[in-house]
Amino acid sequence: MSAQSSVISLLSDFGLVDPFVGELKAVIISICPMARIIDISHEVDRFNIRMGAFLLAEASPAFQEGAIHVAVVDPGVGSSRRAIVVKTRRAAYVGPDNGLLLPAALAEGILRVFEITNRSMMRREVSLTFHGRDIFAPVAAHLACGQLPEECGPEVTDYVKSPYGNAVFERKTVICEILHVDRFGNIVTNLSQNSLSQHNITLAEKLILSVGNRRFSTRVVGTFSDLREGEVGALFGSHGFLEVAAREKSAAEKLRVNPGIPVRIRLSD
Amino acid sequence: MSAQSSVISLLSDFGLVDPFVGELKAVIISICPMARIIDISHEVDRFNIRMGAFLLAEASPAFQEGAIHVAVVDPGVGSSRRAIVVKTRRAAYVGPDNGLLLPAALAEGILRVFEITNRSMMRREVSLTFHGRDIFAPVAAHLACGQLPEECGPEVTDYVKSPYGNAVFERKTVICEILHVDRFGNIVTNLSQNSLSQHNITLAEKLILSVGNRRFSTRVVGTFSDLREGEVGALFGSHGFLEVAAREKSAAEKLRVNPGIPVRIRLSD
Amino acid sequence: MSAQSSVISLLSDFGLVDPFVGELKAVIISICPMARIIDISHEVDRFNIRMGAFLLAEASPAFQEGAIHVAVVDPGVGSSRRAIVVKTRRAAYVGPDNGLLLPAALAEGILRVFEITNRSMMRREVSLTFHGRDIFAPVAAHLACGQLPEECGPEVTDYVKSPYGNAVFERKTVICEILHVDRFGNIVTNLSQNSLSQHNITLAEKLILSVGNRRFSTRVVGTFSDLREGEVGALFGSHGFLEVAAREKSAAEKLRVNPGIPVRIRLSD
Repeated sequence: MSAQSSVISLLSDFGLVDPFVGELKAVIISICPMARIIDISHEVDRFNIRMGAFLLAEASPAFQEGAIHVAVVDPGVGSSRRAIVVKTRRAAYVGPDNGLLLPAALAEGILRVFEITNRSMMRREVSLTFHGRDIFAPVAAHLACGQLPEECGPEVTDYVKSPYGNAVFERKTVICEILHVDRFGNIVTNLSQNSLSQHNITLAEKLILSVGNRRFSTRVVGTFSDLREGEVGALFGSHGFLEVAAREKSAAEKLRVNPGIPVRIRLSD
Repeated sequence: MSAQSSVISLLSDFGLVDPFVGELKAVIISICPMARIIDISHEVDRFNIRMGAFLLAEASPAFQEGAIHVAVVDPGVGSSRRAIVVKTRRAAYVGPDNGLLLPAALAEGILRVFEITNRSMMRREVSLTFHGRDIFAPVAAHLACGQLPEECGPEVTDYVKSPYGNAVFERKTVICEILHVDRFGNIVTNLSQNSLSQHNITLAEKLILSVGNRRFSTRVVGTFSDLREGEVGALFGSHGFLEVAAREKSAAEKLRVNPGIPVRIRLSD
Repeated sequence: MSAQSSVISLLSDFGLVDPFVGELKAVIISICPMARIIDISHEVDRFNIRMGAFLLAEASPAFQEGAIHVAVVDPGVGSSRRAIVVKTRRAAYVGPDNGLLLPAALAEGILRVFEITNRSMMRREVSLTFHGRDIFAPVAAHLACGQLPEECGPEVTDYVKSPYGNAVFERKTVICEILHVDRFGNIVTNLSQNSLSQHNITLAEKLILSVGNRRFSTRVVGTFSDLREGEVGALFGSHGFLEVAAREKSAAEKLRVNPGIPVRIRLSD
């Protein structure tokens, strides 16, 4: 990874009205002018660590090796929560130690985690309320321009774990969870194609989904346009997770579900 | 066009909550690190090809020669709809073959259209549901770094046509259509300054607009501040189309109109 | 400042649906390909000069020396209002002469102000309604690539003043104003840490805030996480202004206040 091609991604719950995101970028460019900055999302719901973690995990595989990911969803800013850098097999993650970075980092394989204590890698004055600008952005810029995660501070092993887990396989059912409802109303679960393969499970052509005491029968299809007008189906989305979708309609509205709700899927009769 | 100065524009209905736009950019940069990426809009209404086509056509004249425009409003993703590259006199357009690229491309003059079939220009694994990331973005990156539209695949001539037409001139009236209501509530029609010139028509100082069975008398002015408080007027906007506008107010709210509605304009008594 | 490292910031009330922001960037890159463009915000409320001015003033200190800031909140576009460049000790500001640029520029120290009249620095055709694309963006691009503010046009001294003032100190109280409510519901006032220092005032541990005929007693804390669940407190935010905040809640919703409302703060008994 040369300085020329260093890519820094940004994800936050800052929104796009306030100037916070612009300030992060200004700080990065002033430290490492050649860094390429790519926004993943700044519209994570306020303080929603779980949602931020999921969006980061969705996006990171699209980045080339050596990317530096900055993520800030940080209700504990200014408190004793630590700032960390997670070094993985493909990338480095910079952000608060609150689980936000974990799903993306785990998917790549975590090598080591460091607490950020090195003041020379931070902004000269560090505010109590805006560590994105004053700690995370400058650290990422220094990493993008050649400093190493090891220089950030001491290694830690007791970092906060992932805000959500994997789907759980029981006899004939799998208990998964709704992680996200995307722009198109597709319901994204934590059931990954990988985990099905690992359990040697092939999905049936029809699945029975239980949400609370409601049950839905859904056909498993390849893509949205395989669905009939009005039909709700299941498919593995472009990020490798099982999604419940409707054709040019919002499946989430149709089924009246939200992120966080558990879903039980019957795998066989 | 050298690799150094290649500009890629992006337009989609992906919104800014999900990480889709960031993924497109990550893929582009990993293939063509020197590409400059400019967002046109990602807030096209879901599946609204017509709106996407209009915004693209509004924006493209501001780009320098040699730009590559990626547009993704794609209800038919994964179906048999083709992926195409449209080569014009000034630029190249990459996206689905559903009419989205046509108004912008037609305005520049279409040279040739190619179906995208060359797998070596796509992402290694192509999902069924996210061609923006897996086909359009990598193709655009390869074009930005020197490959030619001709390399994408075979030429096609039966591509899908524009989702909207030009204003129609009848004796003393012109029948146009509302293409867009912008952020400021200005009502943008498909009546272009160019087409008036071609028909040797000069607008009167007052126009009678008919929307359904309602009629409005509007003064033709040069700019918004020529209007009186509360007055609704007509002017040629900065993109060359006739707009109906109010001063620091939303003309669309005042007249209760929406995109898609036909408007009849009386040109003379 | 070399051409390589020139940073141009953009702020506007254009929103992110219409292609206006993309057009500004396309014009900039076509004139000065090496310019780095950073968005501050495009979600300023329509025509809200005061809000735009405040967001610009919040963001500009994060930029390195030599930055060029383009700001467009411009209800008077096309009228006789002038286009100006403000040269400060650290940066250059390009935009309409309506006060928008003043708070940010004043904070850095204004050196000289020039009216933009030099047609060779504008786009070939200048529309009456989109000076952002046709005047401000190209002027900024020319400045980023080495032209001087002095080349834009004649010096002016009668430019429009700031849309808001500083907090006013009276005996035992300070009369300030709500400038902004941020994404997290924090109420940001125009009472700066600097002005308190200049008046040799140290805040008490508790402040009495009067908003209209309502009164609130608030504790002064260092950061959000010092607050108890449900408590509303006061702190100096990361931009140096007194903010009224609640922990992981919207203080603005709790106190039902909006920008523009005057707030009286009792400094001592």
